[in-house]
Amino acid sequence: MEWISKSNIMIVGLGLMGGSYARALKRLGYRVSAIDSRAEAIRYALDRGIIDRGFTEPDAAALGDSDAVIFALYPGVFKAWIAQYQHLFKSGALLTDVTGVKSCLVYAIQAMLRPDVEYIAAHPMAGREVYGVENSDERIFLDANYIVVPTARNTPEAIEWCKSLGQVLGFARVVVLSPEEHDEMIGFLSQLTHCIAIALMTCNDSRHLAEYTGNSFRDLTRIARINEDMWSELFLLNKEPLLRHMDAFIGELQALRHCLTDDDAEGLRARMRLSTQRRAAFDEPEE
Amino acid sequence: MEWISKSNIMIVGLGLMGGSYARALKRLGYRVSAIDSRAEAIRYALDRGIIDRGFTEPDAAALGDSDAVIFALYPGVFKAWIAQYQHLFKSGALLTDVTGVKSCLVYAIQAMLRPDVEYIAAHPMAGREVYGVENSDERIFLDANYIVVPTARNTPEAIEWCKSLGQVLGFARVVVLSPEEHDEMIGFLSQLTHCIAIALMTCNDSRHLAEYTGNSFRDLTRIARINEDMWSELFLLNKEPLLRHMDAFIGELQALRHCLTDDDAEGLRARMRLSTQRRAAFDEPEE
Repeated sequence: MEWISKSNIMIVGLGLMGGSYARALKRLGYRVSAIDSRAEAIRYALDRGIIDRGFTEPDAAALGDSDAVIFALYPGVFKAWIAQYQHLFKSGALLTDVTGVKSCLVYAIQAMLRPDVEYIAAHPMAGREVYGVENSDERIFLDANYIVVPTARNTPEAIEWCKSLGQVLGFARVVVLSPEEHDEMIGFLSQLTHCIAIALMTCNDSRHLAEYTGNSFRDLTRIARINEDMWSELFLLNKEPLLRHMDAFIGELQALRHCLTDDDAEGLRARMRLSTQRRAAFDEPEE
Repeated sequence: MEWISKSNIMIVGLGLMGGSYARALKRLGYRVSAIDSRAEAIRYALDRGIIDRGFTEPDAAALGDSDAVIFALYPGVFKAWIAQYQHLFKSGALLTDVTGVKSCLVYAIQAMLRPDVEYIAAHPMAGREVYGVENSDERIFLDANYIVVPTARNTPEAIEWCKSLGQVLGFARVVVLSPEEHDEMIGFLSQLTHCIAIALMTCNDSRHLAEYTGNSFRDLTRIARINEDMWSELFLLNKEPLLRHMDAFIGELQALRHCLTDDDAEGLRARMRLSTQRRAAFDEPEE
């Protein structure tokens, strides 16, 4: 397997996700290096054997012998990093990432990239509500999806390598989507749901109700604890799909509202029947 | 304790909630009777020793020797039942219920009730997404709140009895609220969240996305599987608080939407910081 030969791996950005990648890859026997501007992150990972080598800034020698480079940075920082440091990559290196938005990044990075390295985009749909390599944990991959997001510029070999990466990391499913399919899906399943959780917490100072909450309110707002720097960037970079999904959702809430003001019990029941039927279909794969 | 002396208990409506009450009370040594128009529900409960006596219609002798009557019916049916059969209650009987809306019911029932019986309203905030005595399970009470909802017409003795009932049933917390406080709280924590879950399932035919869903989408839509007859009635009976909460929530979503269209990253971050701070306060009681 091609993947096996990419034995020197560099992780750029050693936070929760980069750290979880490092733990999994180190355990699998790869030589893992990392770059992170936070010296404590590097020290923490070196002290615990999560990485073999660590750097607080891009290191020419270390990048020059890395067969694969995994970017676990915020989207804007990722793009700027490539522009500034891509001359340091080893010829033939494969690059991938963990970024949660794709169309706005993948085409731009592939267009600016040296022709002798290849960037194959990926989105590991895993995470926690805590941050930093100190909270990294490769078990977050176990019941999660890993999305490989190729474009027409990618080679079959790079796509296969990236799929193998998702598999060896332990993801439950490895799926291939186009950047546009990815962004449409993520705008609905992840970004709209985070908008809802935020709005539910900000629409009412409900803290005095904490003692009455059952599981439904807690379930709907768990993701309202959010990293505002990362998520505001992700929302703005995926603005068009997200606005489309928000408008469709607000439209449905308005329709429910009209049923209420019109005393339209049958209208309410019809929407509840549809939601019940659709949600039941969602339960099948997990039950 | 006054509660102990109410040893003959009648449950009217032997579904999931009535059946769960019956199981708990029978285990505690009370004599438990039940009325349900569904003959299979009565037969099921008798066969398994969940009740001592069962009837498919109001029985004068059984109601005449019941010290306490617990109504586990839909709101409209509950009110009609009282109007039609209240002459059958034993003098001095205490009545209570499990209904999820209060202002629209409690005052009307207390106003029409015989002066020699007393109705003390309650809302056990427990449930499952399945129905019927066949799915009843007293464990649903264990981590749930039991709300006692008195009015000025209630006696201290009845309020104490109802609180004791919540305790012996095994609820984690027993709380007292006015009908208006109850309806405002339930409109927000339960009804608005169900509206959100319904709208999230109906705004997009997302069934093809089932394979990509992570926990956040599943958590937000779990309650989209809903009993349309019961919930449409509950929504319409609590229309005013629910509409107020829906409007506040839609307003917050519109505000997020404007931040997106205006590229207002700081506006997004400010809302995320507020939601994070408020949700953290919610986590404290459970962590």
